[in-house]
Amino acid sequence: MSTPLVSSFGIAVRQAREAQGWSQERLAEYSDLNRSYVGEIERGRVIASLVTVEKLAVSLGVPPSALVMRGEAVAQAQLVRGLHLAAIAC
Amino acid sequence: MSTPLVSSFGIAVRQAREAQGWSQERLAEYSDLNRSYVGEIERGRVIASLVTVEKLAVSLGVPPSALVMRGEAVAQAQLVRGLHLAAIAC
Repeated sequence: MSTPLVSSFGIAVRQAREAQGWSQERLAEYSDLNRSYVGEIERGRVIASLVTVEKLAVSLGVPPSALVMRGEAVAQAQLVRGLHLAAIAC
Repeated sequence: MSTPLVSSFGIAVRQAREAQGWSQERLAEYSDLNRSYVGEIERGRVIASLVTVEKLAVSLGVPPSALVMRGEAVAQAQLVRGLHLAAIAC
């Protein structure tokens, strides 16, 4: 079962990767993960385990909790945007 | 493959649960998880997924990132304790 955090975590990973100017291949290599698996994580199609979160975070040079926190921030921003659109529609 | 974070995350979950005065059964019930699975997580025997981390965190009333951060703090404390013991042994 996926959740908003799974999707927003994926967006946070993609943003952090792009901020480094890395391809998915490079992040996958540095994280010792499969390239297509990294793609699936970024699209929120698979649920990362704590070990995978750690591998990605270490590659990206941040603590695992910071990467999860970025995911929470993305989810929060999406929620605010949704409320804003709902308010415009009312 | 387990990592120090998996083990220390389990300790952090146990500490947070005990701080609430909850049994594993209660935490499992609130988190919609199996009791024995919660026990395995606390002992660092299984690797929690991001969704499981989120379920536990929501039950415990903290953001998922905060629960992961507590795990990092436990790992850090264990590392410092290990270095201290090594220094005494030298």
